[in-house]
Amino acid sequence: MANDQPPRPSRRGFLKAGSAAVAAGASLGATGVAQAALGKTPAHAADPTMAVEPFYGLHQGGIVTPQQSHTYVAALDLTTEKRDDVIALLRAWTNAAARMTQGSTAAPLPPADAANTAANTTDAANANGTYDAASNKGAPDSGDVLGLGPCGLTITFGFGPGLFTHEGKDRYGLASRRPAALVDLPRFNGDQLIAEKTGGDLFIQACANDQQVAFHAVRQLSRLANGVATMRWGQSGFLSGPRGQTPRNLMGFKDGTNNPSTAKPQLMNEFIWAGATPDAPWMEGGTYTVFRRIRITLEHWDNTEVDFQEQVFGRHKYSGAPIGKKNEFDPVDLTEEDKDGNPVIPENSHVRLSNQASNNGAQILRRSYSYNEGTNFYIERWPPWRQETEYDAGLIFLAHQSDPRKGFIPINDKLAKFDMMNQFTTHVGSAVFAVPPGAKPGSYIGAGLFET
Amino acid sequence: MANDQPPRPSRRGFLKAGSAAVAAGASLGATGVAQAALGKTPAHAADPTMAVEPFYGLHQGGIVTPQQSHTYVAALDLTTEKRDDVIALLRAWTNAAARMTQGSTAAPLPPADAANTAANTTDAANANGTYDAASNKGAPDSGDVLGLGPCGLTITFGFGPGLFTHEGKDRYGLASRRPAALVDLPRFNGDQLIAEKTGGDLFIQACANDQQVAFHAVRQLSRLANGVATMRWGQSGFLSGPRGQTPRNLMGFKDGTNNPSTAKPQLMNEFIWAGATPDAPWMEGGTYTVFRRIRITLEHWDNTEVDFQEQVFGRHKYSGAPIGKKNEFDPVDLTEEDKDGNPVIPENSHVRLSNQASNNGAQILRRSYSYNEGTNFYIERWPPWRQETEYDAGLIFLAHQSDPRKGFIPINDKLAKFDMMNQFTTHVGSAVFAVPPGAKPGSYIGAGLFET
Repeated sequence: MANDQPPRPSRRGFLKAGSAAVAAGASLGATGVAQAALGKTPAHAADPTMAVEPFYGLHQGGIVTPQQSHTYVAALDLTTEKRDDVIALLRAWTNAAARMTQGSTAAPLPPADAANTAANTTDAANANGTYDAASNKGAPDSGDVLGLGPCGLTITFGFGPGLFTHEGKDRYGLASRRPAALVDLPRFNGDQLIAEKTGGDLFIQACANDQQVAFHAVRQLSRLANGVATMRWGQSGFLSGPRGQTPRNLMGFKDGTNNPSTAKPQLMNEFIWAGATPDAPWMEGGTYTVFRRIRITLEHWDNTEVDFQEQVFGRHKYSGAPIGKKNEFDPVDLTEEDKDGNPVIPENSHVRLSNQASNNGAQILRRSYSYNEGTNFYIERWPPWRQETEYDAGLIFLAHQSDPRKGFIPINDKLAKFDMMNQFTTHVGSAVFAVPPGAKPGSYIGAGLFET
Repeated sequence: MANDQPPRPSRRGFLKAGSAAVAAGASLGATGVAQAALGKTPAHAADPTMAVEPFYGLHQGGIVTPQQSHTYVAALDLTTEKRDDVIALLRAWTNAAARMTQGSTAAPLPPADAANTAANTTDAANANGTYDAASNKGAPDSGDVLGLGPCGLTITFGFGPGLFTHEGKDRYGLASRRPAALVDLPRFNGDQLIAEKTGGDLFIQACANDQQVAFHAVRQLSRLANGVATMRWGQSGFLSGPRGQTPRNLMGFKDGTNNPSTAKPQLMNEFIWAGATPDAPWMEGGTYTVFRRIRITLEHWDNTEVDFQEQVFGRHKYSGAPIGKKNEFDPVDLTEEDKDGNPVIPENSHVRLSNQASNNGAQILRRSYSYNEGTNFYIERWPPWRQETEYDAGLIFLAHQSDPRKGFIPINDKLAKFDMMNQFTTHVGSAVFAVPPGAKPGSYIGAGLFET
């Protein structure tokens, strides 16, 4: 009978890569972490679907990791009143995330059912664990990315203000441990935030070189939260760029050119990684992540001349060079003037206002993606206030920093007031999270918050 | 001064591929068309970003073309009352689409402005045309896919019922030329159609091996319609699959296994390509395309057992084989019974109900994509009627056929009534279009409708 039965999926290529990665991850240890901090991909493969990123380490992945082509970010709201539920969830998330980043399913697949077992001992062994029917409701993994490879998946977890205090209540005994740097974001000029796309108690950022792999990760993790937390918002994003070049955003400009170099640990330590502050020693090696969903009126933008677009950005469109310069990575010189004494890079251009020289030296690590969610009816907030069906597309702005009070908040305060780009952009979603350091094997993300 | 100016973008790799493709397209002619009809990609490159599909030919691309990894589909409503405007739009669309599929911008880029010209003669020449400032408002191309390569882009245009008659009016003198096969779709059981995601006078399907390239195409084309037509809906889709294998949809099952083979011209002629019917001789070599936006309650689905999921599909999840069979492409045997005399493939399984043997031999060419547009509040339409924030994700069902009255309509009528899958799926968007044959160089898509 057994040979009349369908074989289990051949996940050989998939699992081979996964196993290699597990081995590499185990042996790399601190080296892997150091490489990640340097912006290098350990076990880097020429085929981006075969790339594997370490999960365990000093820092979480997905922060200084070279940016993958896709993301799915999500926030959940905790519904439980029990501290132990939160810990159990973080343990489950850590284990599932570690598995998935290495190319495995979120949980072991069940051994083949009775009729199938004989033909499938190999696959059952590969499943790398025991299926516990009692603890699972439904399939242990949605199975939709079988065969796709690890795709450089990173999974990054964060904690929103609601984990510490919720409607004035200290649900989990954590209120006193809230970092001062985890401030509620102020209302910025022009904000049109949608509640259903804003905030959240827990944050998941999955980045991968395939969009289904990124979504798959969040989908499995969200399911593990059943009964403990509910989905607040989810959002996919993508980056299309020739490999090794700065990708262009939907406005047609290169985005991310002036990021601080992840290859310079001293820059990362100064601007990106949180230190061991007295109020939140458990955040050492973590970071603070700001999420903004920025809708862009592409129809309006497309009807402007390239010269004007360059004035808005302060950069040349095709080369990406600062205005008046030749090459993308030429330094931005804000002091340069034309023959009439006017600044070469306009006063209210995006590059000038966001530059560190205009912000007391502040830097943030932007790791943004484009988004594209069809069309809906929209009223533009600038003249001529067009009302029509428009693209719901734009930028998933993601930025990491050691302290938002010195990073995103002052920078965006200035941009929100003066940036010429505001004619085309509207912030419709927003959130801020404390992203704790990485976990050691056997421990879990956030252990320092709950157990020290 | 010239060497202080930024260089124009290096589009060498991009343009080289584009030029090669133009040459190939010109010389291929009928051969290219025949290869497309056989499901082969002419000028096929190992790097999917360098793949080039012919635009001109007997048939439009994107129908029997091997499926690319991404799509952006859109429908527009005509606002003009003038027949000539529609013809001018179709001419403009044809020209821009031909350019973009071969890796060029939608319109020639302007020669570098005065200061830049000296350094950029090569690039200005490469732009392959003359920039006419008077006829352009804003940039000739959004520029966001510069450097990304042709990515196997195909662009397929279609005509909705509203082109022929709009609110009882024959706006363009075409009412008598409406094909009988272009029926208004009936209301199917369970339909929950959203007006803003349904219908449309004109259809654009852009498919490419990069999502920004697909979106870019629709964005440029939609802009060319300014003043003549407005966007009704737009929708992106994707397919993640190991190359050369049937991709899995978000339910985790392989999707498209039982499609008629595009390598068999007689099958395509019988089921997919429209013939020269007396009512619409201009449709010969065209097809009829049905679009459905099918939301899937993934959260609900994920909590069901794999055994149950297999009963719903009538296929094994991991192998893709019909239940009781071993391999994905084993034939579906609807007559097989188990030892108790029950059908091995359940009565109300998706595979049985949609199989040609259950539909008088009818076949359609499905060319569907997954979609994933974040989350929103949703009320499930089946017990336990959960109300919560859920993924707005599912399937962009696209199917081509020679006559929807013999294809999609009877098949979906049966599915809508009996398919077990309906517990998890809801059709929220819908449209049907007459997709005319391909154009000859110098002519335009739809010329046969207006000029014969």
